Amino acid sequence: MTDKSVIYLDYAATTPVDAEVIAEALPYFGASFYNPASSHIMGQIASMALERARRTALAAIGGKGCGRIVFTSGGTEAVNQAIKCAPVKAGDHIVVSAIEHDSVLACAERMKELGVFVDFVMPDADGVITPEAFSKVVNENTKLVCVMTVNNIIGTIQPIKELVAVAKKYGALFFTDAVQAANAVDIDVSDSGVDMLCLSGHKFYAPKGTGLLYVKEGVKLKPLLDGGAQEYGLRAGTADVAGAVAIAEALSRAQNDHDKYYAHAHAVSNAFISALDCGEVIAKNARKTGDIVSVAFDGVNGGRLAVALSVAGVCCSVGSACSAGSAVPPPTLTAMKVKNADGAVRFSFGKPTTLAQAAAAAKIVNETVAKLKSAKAGGGKA
Amino acid sequence: MTDKSVIYLDYAATTPVDAEVIAEALPYFGASFYNPASSHIMGQIASMALERARRTALAAIGGKGCGRIVFTSGGTEAVNQAIKCAPVKAGDHIVVSAIEHDSVLACAERMKELGVFVDFVMPDADGVITPEAFSKVVNENTKLVCVMTVNNIIGTIQPIKELVAVAKKYGALFFTDAVQAANAVDIDVSDSGVDMLCLSGHKFYAPKGTGLLYVKEGVKLKPLLDGGAQEYGLRAGTADVAGAVAIAEALSRAQNDHDKYYAHAHAVSNAFISALDCGEVIAKNARKTGDIVSVAFDGVNGGRLAVALSVAGVCCSVGSACSAGSAVPPPTLTAMKVKNADGAVRFSFGKPTTLAQAAAAAKIVNETVAKLKSAKAGGGKA
Repeated sequence: MTDKSVIYLDYAATTPVDAEVIAEALPYFGASFYNPASSHIMGQIASMALERARRTALAAIGGKGCGRIVFTSGGTEAVNQAIKCAPVKAGDHIVVSAIEHDSVLACAERMKELGVFVDFVMPDADGVITPEAFSKVVNENTKLVCVMTVNNIIGTIQPIKELVAVAKKYGALFFTDAVQAANAVDIDVSDSGVDMLCLSGHKFYAPKGTGLLYVKEGVKLKPLLDGGAQEYGLRAGTADVAGAVAIAEALSRAQNDHDKYYAHAHAVSNAFISALDCGEVIAKNARKTGDIVSVAFDGVNGGRLAVALSVAGVCCSVGSACSAGSAVPPPTLTAMKVKNADGAVRFSFGKPTTLAQAAAAAKIVNETVAKLKSAKAGGGKA
Repeated sequence: MTDKSVIYLDYAATTPVDAEVIAEALPYFGASFYNPASSHIMGQIASMALERARRTALAAIGGKGCGRIVFTSGGTEAVNQAIKCAPVKAGDHIVVSAIEHDSVLACAERMKELGVFVDFVMPDADGVITPEAFSKVVNENTKLVCVMTVNNIIGTIQPIKELVAVAKKYGALFFTDAVQAANAVDIDVSDSGVDMLCLSGHKFYAPKGTGLLYVKEGVKLKPLLDGGAQEYGLRAGTADVAGAVAIAEALSRAQNDHDKYYAHAHAVSNAFISALDCGEVIAKNARKTGDIVSVAFDGVNGGRLAVALSVAGVCCSVGSACSAGSAVPPPTLTAMKVKNADGAVRFSFGKPTTLAQAAAAAKIVNETVAKLKSAKAGGGKA
């Protein structure tokens, strides 16, 4: 269903699949449906398609010659494998940024249960994990650190290369969740030196249920899914060839076009921000992707505002879709000690977003906030 | 790629996606691409589609009112969750049939590492786990038992309802891997009383990368993937709506048509068997799905025969695709003490297989076996 009267500003939650990406993947449902693990000729042809997708994805993120791609069912699976299957044992120390995605924070909690010591690094007021703050918590006992490339709530781009340099001094493995990064940021694993990096297809115009984990040469990971020897023995289960072809194609397109995307994202988000007459943009001084704008409104509740906006025709979110329904503000905003975090709403923009939509949405936000405030002032339950 | 000169007899490894199933799923890539976890109206519409798929899948396996469906990325993920996340701790006892799929056997090994005692039940000479054999290994300390509904190598249908009755006497949870069953067998979880059951979409004409785990009301499972609260908190990660719609539609179709499929499968496999003039059909006295025929050939190696058959235009396999490349016969055949297990090859038939193809394939098998034997007799490396 598409309703032209709705302005969708929740592209950070999920994106539509590009028509060209669907076209690339479709043959693998039908005529080329074979199992790449089969030894016969049809299996071998399917395997060639899978390995071609793997090379495409690896090349797109600058990993040729320095590591491998493990296809997964999404970002969350890749995060779980990177953290829970890393060479970390009870008594070891890991460091996690306080502004990570739910899945990273949940895996960190699981590691704590196993006797691993977990420290969190706090962001600065603009939602950035600085090398200085990071240096204070990483130490000789640190085996793994997790800092996302782009924060999914406020769109801040983290200084990954500088953070990797700190981690390397202590010999810690560096995992970055780059799920929100592929559209706007040039991902280059050989330049940044990260040990593991994960991506989720549905954030960059590939289907849901697709994802990948980049693993640097020499990193000893265990499988999360036990069974067959697929994916270098790191991920059992019949490979989803159509999904692999789709995510590789979409990733290649996203990385080829990240400059254009970045410019477009900033143009539409600036149009949105200029037309807003209320609220405070969060992390406005940080280097950002442009496609995510979180705004803290005073005197209104973010959850109620998001519902009212949905009714008024603007789809946005409070925090990530993965934590939708939660009554508390996203951990990112709490860690940043954002003022009026209870009134924060995330607007995120995509390739199809137009300047006119951005401005129109801002106008609806202005009106809706005003309406909620006046209802509250009048004794209503705003 | 489809090559009309190839006869594909490896439908147990994977099936093409039904055109009607693709048609049902496609809108969720494009116009209805939204994230079902989003609170706004578009998210809610996506969530309705996801829940509709869940009800369809649950109803198709007779689970209405007695449990829930957790959508997964495939059979292997579901198997991993069922076994590794079951309420089983070090010192407990679990029972696994010796003819399970690689993923079940691998998870059982993982449980051993965690201090769980694992016993294997051997099949009879026809590849059936009998209630008698099963009764001898299940005891008061048994917390979980794993017996597949249909064996993936030889197609035997296991007496699940009778085995459940034995397990229940001891209060053990019953998990059945029904991955190879959905096409030919009437799956009815309320009748059989199983506690957990898994399926993989690509075995019944849905896309690869789709699967599900049925969990009976009251069974306390942990998540395998930590993160968001999707799928009743049992499986984090953005739900693949298109995949869920596809597997539910395909499962519903498969279960509606299982009688017709069963008759067709037996017709084509009988045509194949009648035209064979060599080898010994394995488990020929057992109740079988009809779509899987494993044949043990004397005097030839199964791996070499499968390669020669691929070259001659017949695609078949030695064991499961998940263990392709393995130099030893499938565990199922070893457990059954099959004569000439080294010379065993699996032929599996699907909805598109015709009687003419089955007979033509048998003729090619006859010729290829004869050729390999004469090459060997002549001193060649058969």
